Amino acid sequence: MRYALGVEYDGSGFSGWQRLSQPGEAGPPTVQAALEQALGQVADAPVATVCAGRTDAGVHALCQVVHFDSDAPREPRGWMLGATSRLPPSVAVRWCVPVADDFHARFGALARRYRYRILNRAVRPALARQYLAWCRRPLDAAAMHRAAQALLGEHDFSSFRTVHCQAPHARRELQRIAVTREGDEVVVEVQANAFLHHMVRNIVGSLLEVGAGERPEAWIAGLLAARDRTLAGATAPASGLLFVGPLYPRACGLPCEVSL
Amino acid sequence: MRYALGVEYDGSGFSGWQRLSQPGEAGPPTVQAALEQALGQVADAPVATVCAGRTDAGVHALCQVVHFDSDAPREPRGWMLGATSRLPPSVAVRWCVPVADDFHARFGALARRYRYRILNRAVRPALARQYLAWCRRPLDAAAMHRAAQALLGEHDFSSFRTVHCQAPHARRELQRIAVTREGDEVVVEVQANAFLHHMVRNIVGSLLEVGAGERPEAWIAGLLAARDRTLAGATAPASGLLFVGPLYPRACGLPCEVSL
Repeated sequence: MRYALGVEYDGSGFSGWQRLSQPGEAGPPTVQAALEQALGQVADAPVATVCAGRTDAGVHALCQVVHFDSDAPREPRGWMLGATSRLPPSVAVRWCVPVADDFHARFGALARRYRYRILNRAVRPALARQYLAWCRRPLDAAAMHRAAQALLGEHDFSSFRTVHCQAPHARRELQRIAVTREGDEVVVEVQANAFLHHMVRNIVGSLLEVGAGERPEAWIAGLLAARDRTLAGATAPASGLLFVGPLYPRACGLPCEVSL
Repeated sequence: MRYALGVEYDGSGFSGWQRLSQPGEAGPPTVQAALEQALGQVADAPVATVCAGRTDAGVHALCQVVHFDSDAPREPRGWMLGATSRLPPSVAVRWCVPVADDFHARFGALARRYRYRILNRAVRPALARQYLAWCRRPLDAAAMHRAAQALLGEHDFSSFRTVHCQAPHARRELQRIAVTREGDEVVVEVQANAFLHHMVRNIVGSLLEVGAGERPEAWIAGLLAARDRTLAGATAPASGLLFVGPLYPRACGLPCEVSL
């Protein structure tokens, strides 16, 4: 039986999503290792998970989606409550639904959404500081938004890809990018069919230079065309980044928060 | 010279606002002790502060207002940045303005505002869990809102006052109370001229019983009239509570976020 889970986590204390050691071995704390251990206790057997989008150390998720197989006779609600009760306080299972045997959390996702929050004021954040980046220079969010629109569509995003990225090619389709200001906060929302490693944080890092007036708006279009990572801005901090979640065809039967 | 400060803090790691030991003595960590130590380093002399509203252990503040006196030759921006750089990551000074010698953060405030956030779903929160209470029973926010309106106006709030409250009388004027639902969250916003000890958390605890259908809406009005703490609901957890801030006459010259 295959199940899909919606998983919420605060990435502050984790070395990212991906399990870095074999089950039972000591290793850095990761969300996948914590989740597989909790599910394994509920199943009373080892459980392996596949996620929609591997997040880096310190990155949070509102609704990561995961699939796993198990023949243990548990109701979806039992998986949700049983796993959550065995997870650390920074991870919770939002929902569990049975899915078709060919459902695949990674390959079945049509799109992914991320949100990046920047507190833009003279002093660093105290409240919600785990979920914010901080920029003390005044940012022109409207200029950032206009500049970002050059990234829409299918392009080679090599300029925004870390050297550690293992993807076979750098073509991705950016479907939406919006930069808005909400009081002291500048928020970047972005949706693509898929993302390269560090792609959101590298886009945000470059948009910050435009927002601070250090670069003209057209610089972003030029960066994209150059396909050269050495030209783009610094990688923005992990703490500001939230994986809002993937999107699947409605026919998969997942909750509306992850259905197109 | 007298100054007013806007202070933001995450109360999770503090035993509340109020300093519980003499400067230099060991004691439980409090926001006041941390702030006075930081200001004292900037002033190079001891600094004593008076706040608008003392918060309990675990309660957060978006904009606590504080006044203090110092003859140290510092610009307001120097106090703000200097103190923030000497404070733990969970406390930041949002602004500093010089005020009249008779300005008083506590006695000069015309009103105080609080916000209480309840995550209302089957599983506990992982994201922002420091800033949320959790209720797994489905809540009828509209019923809570209607019931709460009975508290508006000037009343004796003895039913919502902890036995440890040291106020000389229990009359307070509740100026606004609104309960709204935002997705999975139920938010209670409340404004009064002043609050009794645990008053917001005790009101919320009672409204939760109405929201869960355990009590009729009219129960709240009856509780208020009874002036008997033993009849009201349990005190809601500290983590959900945020002191949004006090409000002063515009003539005080404070930032608009704390001006009426």
